[in-house]
Amino acid sequence: MKRTKAVIIIGDGLADRPVPELDGRTPLEAADTPNLDRVAADGECGQMDPIGPGVRAGSDTSHLAILGYDPFKVYTGRGPFEALGIGMDVERGDICFRCNFSTLEGDLRLEGDHFAGAKVVDRRAQRISEGTHELAQAVNGVVIEDVTCYVKESVEHRAALVLRGPGLGPNASDVDPHEDGAVPHASHGDDEESRKTAWVLNQFVLRSWEALRNHPVNTQRVAAGKLPANVILPRGGGVAPHLEPFEQKYGVKGACVVETGLIAGIGRYLHMTVPTVEGATGGADTNELALAQAIIEMLQDHDFVLCNFKAPDLGGHDSKPDAKIKAAEKLDNLVAYVLDHVPAGTHIAITADHCTPINFGDHTGDTVPIAISGPNVRKDTVQSFGERSVVGGAIARIRGFDIMPIMTNLMGVQEKFGA
Amino acid sequence: MKRTKAVIIIGDGLADRPVPELDGRTPLEAADTPNLDRVAADGECGQMDPIGPGVRAGSDTSHLAILGYDPFKVYTGRGPFEALGIGMDVERGDICFRCNFSTLEGDLRLEGDHFAGAKVVDRRAQRISEGTHELAQAVNGVVIEDVTCYVKESVEHRAALVLRGPGLGPNASDVDPHEDGAVPHASHGDDEESRKTAWVLNQFVLRSWEALRNHPVNTQRVAAGKLPANVILPRGGGVAPHLEPFEQKYGVKGACVVETGLIAGIGRYLHMTVPTVEGATGGADTNELALAQAIIEMLQDHDFVLCNFKAPDLGGHDSKPDAKIKAAEKLDNLVAYVLDHVPAGTHIAITADHCTPINFGDHTGDTVPIAISGPNVRKDTVQSFGERSVVGGAIARIRGFDIMPIMTNLMGVQEKFGA
Repeated sequence: MKRTKAVIIIGDGLADRPVPELDGRTPLEAADTPNLDRVAADGECGQMDPIGPGVRAGSDTSHLAILGYDPFKVYTGRGPFEALGIGMDVERGDICFRCNFSTLEGDLRLEGDHFAGAKVVDRRAQRISEGTHELAQAVNGVVIEDVTCYVKESVEHRAALVLRGPGLGPNASDVDPHEDGAVPHASHGDDEESRKTAWVLNQFVLRSWEALRNHPVNTQRVAAGKLPANVILPRGGGVAPHLEPFEQKYGVKGACVVETGLIAGIGRYLHMTVPTVEGATGGADTNELALAQAIIEMLQDHDFVLCNFKAPDLGGHDSKPDAKIKAAEKLDNLVAYVLDHVPAGTHIAITADHCTPINFGDHTGDTVPIAISGPNVRKDTVQSFGERSVVGGAIARIRGFDIMPIMTNLMGVQEKFGA
Repeated sequence: MKRTKAVIIIGDGLADRPVPELDGRTPLEAADTPNLDRVAADGECGQMDPIGPGVRAGSDTSHLAILGYDPFKVYTGRGPFEALGIGMDVERGDICFRCNFSTLEGDLRLEGDHFAGAKVVDRRAQRISEGTHELAQAVNGVVIEDVTCYVKESVEHRAALVLRGPGLGPNASDVDPHEDGAVPHASHGDDEESRKTAWVLNQFVLRSWEALRNHPVNTQRVAAGKLPANVILPRGGGVAPHLEPFEQKYGVKGACVVETGLIAGIGRYLHMTVPTVEGATGGADTNELALAQAIIEMLQDHDFVLCNFKAPDLGGHDSKPDAKIKAAEKLDNLVAYVLDHVPAGTHIAITADHCTPINFGDHTGDTVPIAISGPNVRKDTVQSFGERSVVGGAIARIRGFDIMPIMTNLMGVQEKFGA
């Protein structure tokens, strides 16, 4: 039996709702996308619920589902994926937290099993936007007994903390008191291993206070009449899940050609190849042909490539129909190059990870279109790729979690379940 | 409310992919099947994923799902279904293994917790094809303490072993070392009950060595220059699951009119009636009208009959389009008789347990068509029974596991879930 290769191309947030300014069409319907239509006309089409009907998917949960990892089982806490999303190196078993740079007033100390001596004045340090890289560096790599603490800044006052060391449990409570005016809560653990995590976490918070309270960034902030970002308050802890590496799970080598840290982080975590693509900015100005070329290059020694194209999502979040139409046409250009250069007989799937409607400005739980072309697909009568044109196609309605079984079945690489 | 009876007729491996030699039609599309089409035209139609979208189903897992037993929960290890499949009597709680007749060199003995003194020369005893019935009989029924060991040969070097007795656990490791040149592994158990299983299993292997090393079948093999099949090496142990009997689960009497040992075994295991049908060979030459008559007979004192018609699967595995077309037409003939003789108002469902495409030669995970006729079905516009013609029908896309709720709902025998 001949095995085939496969490419899944995901327009991030590509799907939408009818837009009055577009005469009731969606941006995808309004865009000129002959190559997306070609995949639809040659293939089997339908609707997909990235997670489940009506469920508003994140890009992280959707990509996990599309890659065949049930997000209801593996997405345990935001911490690990927050850390992955900002490009941190996360290993299975690490305990990860979301954090804020916050403003404390007083003199923080531990008294037995609780913090005392200081109150949170502003959990977000006036949404500090500059100098957080320097603040994070001041505590990144701190070692507390046999545990190393990795810290990296994210957007504004946000950051992530990764604890790596032996015997750490996942169930340590938040230090962030979740309200201004309160004393930070000392973390406590539900079990012996989580009590170790809690102890390390509390020590880390004290160390952050010591390292940041007189940090030059804060001295300058105070001189400028701003609140200092003088402590790091963790919350939302979770253990980095034991996800089976992609190649081990499916028996094929996989690559991720992507633009955002979050999806790249998921790909690396699954031990997939994640090439650096010059010119892939993740913005409206991205070089879509560079992405397409990377897909073709990866196919030389990989069986499976997932590509995430970020631009449509930005048009949706910014509520700009024109930008989203242009992004869809860039995606079409990417697909044109892929169709012209893939090895004959390659399976191609086109879909989106969620809707980001212009008139909502964030992700919604509507279905997204999907089209799959290549040998042995159940070709139907659908002629174009759009949110409504795929209704009635042979795929009918599936979930993101169904895609990998469908693709590995078509690729001829799936083990039979039973006799 | 009037209760109806129901028949589900399953063309084994009936569904296929477009075949170039058939001008891009599938064998089912190319076959002359006016009676299958009549059910489709009178009924509601759609696509079915036997297990889930894209999942390559076995006949065992698919029939479990179609009968309403979730294979992801009940299909724990190949052993029990391997034993059922070759017609062994299996009872709930039995510990079942797949086995090989293998060739040992040396003098096998147990030393403490491991085997010693002999190595596996050929795990498959040169794929022995004759005399295995006699070899199995030489150890079948052996009693080790309070456990009886049942052995039956399967195809070539394969066999199954059923351990029946009190206090046996399912988690005993393989004796088969899975490579030639190795000493057999003494089985060990993960818990007290599984340790008993492991102890019995090791004793059984020694007993098989004693019974087979000088067996006449092997004396003759050695004289003919062949390797002796002088030991039985078990692997893949699993406990026969506690499946609720069909009648208890649904409140209706059920029968299985089938041709293969595997499906007959599942039917018996669910305490369904499994009649012997004269002329049902399981081959291309089978008497399909004998099967149809058996369905009608069973309907006299049963509410539900499942029929599996094996021939289409053979055409798929053998990659013979003509054989598969003929098999589909035989199935049509079977359905013609059933339609003409069932009590008025009987619900009829026609489907397949999986695809066995001509050009793949084994099961694939594509959808299969389903049509259901009878009172109160949601009749749609579909006019013929085929892989593509049912797309857009009222059933849309369901799973095998959905069929029994749909049928018992139509039959008027299902308990309400809630108030």
